[in-house]
Amino acid sequence: MKNVYRETCQVVVVGAGHAGCEAALACARMGLETIIFTVSVDSIALMPCNPNIGGSSKGHLVREIDALGGEMGKNIDKTFIQSKMLNVSKGPAVHSLRAQADKAEYSRSMRRVLENTEHLAIVQAEVAEILADDGVIKGIKTTSGAIYESQAVVLCTGTYLRARCIYGDISNYTGPNGLQAATHLTESLKNLGIEMYRFKTGTPARVDKRSIDFSKMQEQFGDERIVPFSFTTDPDEIQKHQISCWLTYTNEETHKIIRENLDRSPLYSGMIEGTGPRYCPSIEDKVVRFADKNRHQVFLEPEGLYTNEMYVGGMSSSLPEDVQHAMYSSVAGLEHVRIVRNAYAIEYDCIDARQLYPTLEFKKLSGLFSGGQFNGSSGYEEAAAQGLIAGINAGRKLLGKEPLILDRSQAYIGVLIDDLVTKENREPYRMMTSRAEYRLLLRQDNADLRLTKIGHEMGLISEERYQNLLEKEREIAEEIARVEKVFVGTSEQVQELLNEYGSTPLNSGISLAELIKRPELSYDIVAPLDPKRPKLMRGVAEQVNIHMKYDGYIQRQMRQVEQFQKLENKKLPESLDYNEVPSLRTEARQKLTAVRPLSIGQASRISGVSPADISVLLVWLEHKK
Amino acid sequence: MKNVYRETCQVVVVGAGHAGCEAALACARMGLETIIFTVSVDSIALMPCNPNIGGSSKGHLVREIDALGGEMGKNIDKTFIQSKMLNVSKGPAVHSLRAQADKAEYSRSMRRVLENTEHLAIVQAEVAEILADDGVIKGIKTTSGAIYESQAVVLCTGTYLRARCIYGDISNYTGPNGLQAATHLTESLKNLGIEMYRFKTGTPARVDKRSIDFSKMQEQFGDERIVPFSFTTDPDEIQKHQISCWLTYTNEETHKIIRENLDRSPLYSGMIEGTGPRYCPSIEDKVVRFADKNRHQVFLEPEGLYTNEMYVGGMSSSLPEDVQHAMYSSVAGLEHVRIVRNAYAIEYDCIDARQLYPTLEFKKLSGLFSGGQFNGSSGYEEAAAQGLIAGINAGRKLLGKEPLILDRSQAYIGVLIDDLVTKENREPYRMMTSRAEYRLLLRQDNADLRLTKIGHEMGLISEERYQNLLEKEREIAEEIARVEKVFVGTSEQVQELLNEYGSTPLNSGISLAELIKRPELSYDIVAPLDPKRPKLMRGVAEQVNIHMKYDGYIQRQMRQVEQFQKLENKKLPESLDYNEVPSLRTEARQKLTAVRPLSIGQASRISGVSPADISVLLVWLEHKK
Ligand SMILES: Cc1cc2nc3c(=O)[nH]c(=O)nc-3n(C[C@H](O)[C@H](O)[C@H](O)COP(=O)(O)OP(=O)(O)OC[C@H]3O[C@@H](n4cnc5c(N)ncnc54)[C@H](O)[C@@H]3O)c2cc1C
Ligand SMILES: Cc1cc2nc3c(=O)[nH]c(=O)nc-3n(C[C@H](O)[C@H](O)[C@H](O)COP(=O)(O)OP(=O)(O)OC[C@H]3O[C@@H](n4cnc5c(N)ncnc54)[C@H](O)[C@@H]3O)c2cc1C
Repeated sequence: MKNVYRETCQVVVVGAGHAGCEAALACARMGLETIIFTVSVDSIALMPCNPNIGGSSKGHLVREIDALGGEMGKNIDKTFIQSKMLNVSKGPAVHSLRAQADKAEYSRSMRRVLENTEHLAIVQAEVAEILADDGVIKGIKTTSGAIYESQAVVLCTGTYLRARCIYGDISNYTGPNGLQAATHLTESLKNLGIEMYRFKTGTPARVDKRSIDFSKMQEQFGDERIVPFSFTTDPDEIQKHQISCWLTYTNEETHKIIRENLDRSPLYSGMIEGTGPRYCPSIEDKVVRFADKNRHQVFLEPEGLYTNEMYVGGMSSSLPEDVQHAMYSSVAGLEHVRIVRNAYAIEYDCIDARQLYPTLEFKKLSGLFSGGQFNGSSGYEEAAAQGLIAGINAGRKLLGKEPLILDRSQAYIGVLIDDLVTKENREPYRMMTSRAEYRLLLRQDNADLRLTKIGHEMGLISEERYQNLLEKEREIAEEIARVEKVFVGTSEQVQELLNEYGSTPLNSGISLAELIKRPELSYDIVAPLDPKRPKLMRGVAEQVNIHMKYDGYIQRQMRQVEQFQKLENKKLPESLDYNEVPSLRTEARQKLTAVRPLSIGQASRISGVSPADISVLLVWLEHKK
Repeated sequence: MKNVYRETCQVVVVGAGHAGCEAALACARMGLETIIFTVSVDSIALMPCNPNIGGSSKGHLVREIDALGGEMGKNIDKTFIQSKMLNVSKGPAVHSLRAQADKAEYSRSMRRVLENTEHLAIVQAEVAEILADDGVIKGIKTTSGAIYESQAVVLCTGTYLRARCIYGDISNYTGPNGLQAATHLTESLKNLGIEMYRFKTGTPARVDKRSIDFSKMQEQFGDERIVPFSFTTDPDEIQKHQISCWLTYTNEETHKIIRENLDRSPLYSGMIEGTGPRYCPSIEDKVVRFADKNRHQVFLEPEGLYTNEMYVGGMSSSLPEDVQHAMYSSVAGLEHVRIVRNAYAIEYDCIDARQLYPTLEFKKLSGLFSGGQFNGSSGYEEAAAQGLIAGINAGRKLLGKEPLILDRSQAYIGVLIDDLVTKENREPYRMMTSRAEYRLLLRQDNADLRLTKIGHEMGLISEERYQNLLEKEREIAEEIARVEKVFVGTSEQVQELLNEYGSTPLNSGISLAELIKRPELSYDIVAPLDPKRPKLMRGVAEQVNIHMKYDGYIQRQMRQVEQFQKLENKKLPESLDYNEVPSLRTEARQKLTAVRPLSIGQASRISGVSPADISVLLVWLEHKK
């Protein structure tokens, strides 16, 4: 014992993936002495699968992370090579930003940020053991026996715990991309009474650009005007030459090859025991589940600016190597494809996040937090979002402050974490817009208005940025008030403009606000009719426009939120013994005991807890007062 | 068998370290379809130890690699962050270039070159088996069972075979820096009758720049005028802002900590069985072997432009973690040092290179070549040099051409390979100027004049570069002839210039050549006295100067080379049965049978073969004719 290296810090973060980076940065920025451990310093913020950040609903998460003072948005703004706002033809609730990253640069840039953050130290070592005393965290021990004492530990181990990579009948106990797995920690967690599960996910092959016939594919361009992820990035500074992606399709031949070799898939042979993500299925899954479809999209995406490796999006697989070669080569444009890295599935240990409070602290272990893929999610953005919250709450616990819990009406992050800690989750959880009830409120465009004040309260948003936000709020309110008072007549200029946009001419004067409501018009379009319009700061016009167009719907959704919040505000005592509540059905009793919801609202979302059970609980709560 | 991926190429290179990269590039550039395998694409041309290329005698190797058409010199020219010509105060034989590299950039840049070389494909897979039939190479098999048929295989497995990383009593079966080791190939090689050995080497800790007190260290600057490694790099294009290194020292306290913990070193406890490099000793070795020294140099070197990690040069170690912390912190300026990655030793399987011909082909297996650390050497440059030669010879074998063997009078590469394949080598072999007999001829400045014609013959030097070389040769010869005819009188200008450089004034006229010979003068310095001097291409002036100053010595060394070559030219038949040679001593008989030297010259360098044995051989050879 005497001959062991010992050190004391305040927070230990285990893992430097997307979750760990946000967790560690949050703690350090809150002024806490933080050490982040990683199996390899060279794989900080590694993207082991798809080479992009954002996309439907994930783009929302990145904006929210940014609004709270996280790093992901800034980092992708520094390192993207193509950017696209998705779903622009649809309503603003589903607009979502997605950017292709230069993977190596993304990783390097995040490492640089970590390396230059005060109060933060990086240590390359495998954490083997969580040290706890009587249910309270004391620190960690590395595989070499070194002890780091700390008051909080944030677990962000991703896909590394007892990781196994598999394709065909080949399996290796390594982490993603052949990196060393972390083999010891699972045992320690089990010893502390934490239940471990086994999930799996997969990735497609990486292929040599030079072997692709792009003439048989459709080019996918980035946006003409690039929109940044971070509210702090100046759009003018990130307009740059973009790299294309390419679209092609699988075909009957591809599907035939896959079907004929299904018996050789580790998924079907039972070699893989982990549960895979329904919403990021492998190509063999897709061929089986959507047997009627005669083709699936395949996206060829560059892995970076300086490499010829390309990611074969849509064709993740764990089929044997020879089948992979045959299957990829059957796709138009990939006839002579050279595989650089095989597709593979990965199996790893994770938890059922119902063992956590919505603060992401373990119920059983005071001071132990967790975020990311370890919590049973999938995706870089989901990981980063949880990492940020876990980090914030670890920090706040040490600082003796109230924890941060975002609810489902405040943020996608709230939906994500509430789902994870409340609902049974039998596969890697992926964010989707359909999971959010209040989509029209939780837009990517207003993440700052929703969350930056909170980020400021947490100490993660500078005073300048905060003041900027207040100014923006002010401008929005003033501009809305002003526009509502602007009236336009039936002048020639007006009718011409309406005509230009295929909008019915006016019979009589009307408010500018009314005009903006028309689907074919917008705040920007009617500018010529609004000579007194002031110069507005970035983002204000967009908010004014959305307000004008969707105010009715927004108001309605806000009323629903009020209802929702009433239930959220009815707190359930943590110590509640559900066996003492009469008339609860046994299943409800069991589920409630397992999850220990913090509020009636959370209780109502537990599957197996019926509205009748909720009524019973409400009555009982009222009665107890 | 049917369900296995199969492919046919011409050359397989196993390993994408410094040796493998050169080997693969050489083969592909010779027009052969080449596949290079690596355990991880992300670690191509990784520098697992010191962050620099070149240095004493290693700089010579890089120049020679470049002159032959290799890549290392060009790659470091693209990615260096500091550069220095060493030993400039000494004679030109020992001038040596050394550059600090941005490690990540070095690796990325080399990968880019590989990825964009025609006829070359990169595959991420572990090679498990060498396929041979009746002593002839047929290809390789990967761990997943895929078969790649080829006519030649070049092994460049570096430190990965059954690699084990060790510090204190901790050991992990991983390759350098926690990368996956290659666990299967050793067995396959043994089955083919190849004898395997176990060597070890070590690396110091990487530490956080922010935790260093540089005010207690001496700053080490780069050169004011940067000289490139590659003969093709325009010096004007690489003049840039350089990053400093820093010098500090160990002290009695450091040595005390080490001595007191020697019993806990795996080296001394017998846990490490591999043999370590005497010329890159660990700090504990240094403290033990040079017990009278009260301090050792420690160089803090940046690992790259964008990282805060610094390399603690001179303090490689495998002591336990707690001792490492104590020992590093005892050094001036490192009092509060934060270790990011521990120091460790690595043990790996390699061969005794006497199993190879000087072509680097295995004597026992036609078509199997090897280069780099696998051959029992250490160092990036040593690896690259062998990789290049192994690649060239694999290629030439396939093309039905004569192999390339450089002798000890032609290149450091010749010395390196001759030493490896001839002499018993009980530790990782490192290049040193003292190993070269003809140092004055094998200068780094004339590597192009020595080798670029050969590179051109090999097909690795473009016609343009070759013509350029011929032009350079011509200019040198003409300028030497011209200068020898220039006479200077005793004019005021002459005497003033001599006075300025502290040189004795002239009594009477003298040839310019004579003046240049004076140690305090040079071809450049006397330029004002030489108004007719023509404009010369890059590098010519330096050659003329060296010729003028050292011609006598050079002539003498060239006469020695003639003697040497006489013995080299006396070929020994490969099939020679040394038991049939009468009067050979038993030891000589055994050693000769083991090495099977190709010439009397090589035979004479085998330890255990005496001058008397050589005479016996010479007489016997004469007699046989
Ligand atoms: C093969 C593969 C396929 C994937 N496919 C998809 C997909 O199709 N769709 C999708 O949305 N997502 C996919 N993902 C998931 C996505 O990559 C992850 O969700 C995301 O990277 C998770 O981030 P994280 O921070 O939770 O963990 P990771 O990025 O996995 O990072 C974990 C970190 O923890 C460190 N670590 C772990 N254990 C220890 C320990 N004991 N001691 C010290 N350090 C430790 C590691 O070194 C690493 O730094 C895939 C991942 C992989 C590997
Ligand atoms: C810890 C450490 C300390 C060192 N210290 C020093 C020092 O002090 N001084 C010094 O001069 N040198 C030192 N070196 C040595 C120097 O790093 C190496 O000599 C140099 O990198 C060797 O180059 P290489 O090409 O032979 O092999 P490496 O750079 O080791 O590359 C080997 C390549 O082979 C691949 N590979 C191996 N086996 C397989 C397989 N079966 N299938 C597919 N791919 C395979 C690997 O992926 C890798 O790409 C050290 C190295 C290490 C790791």
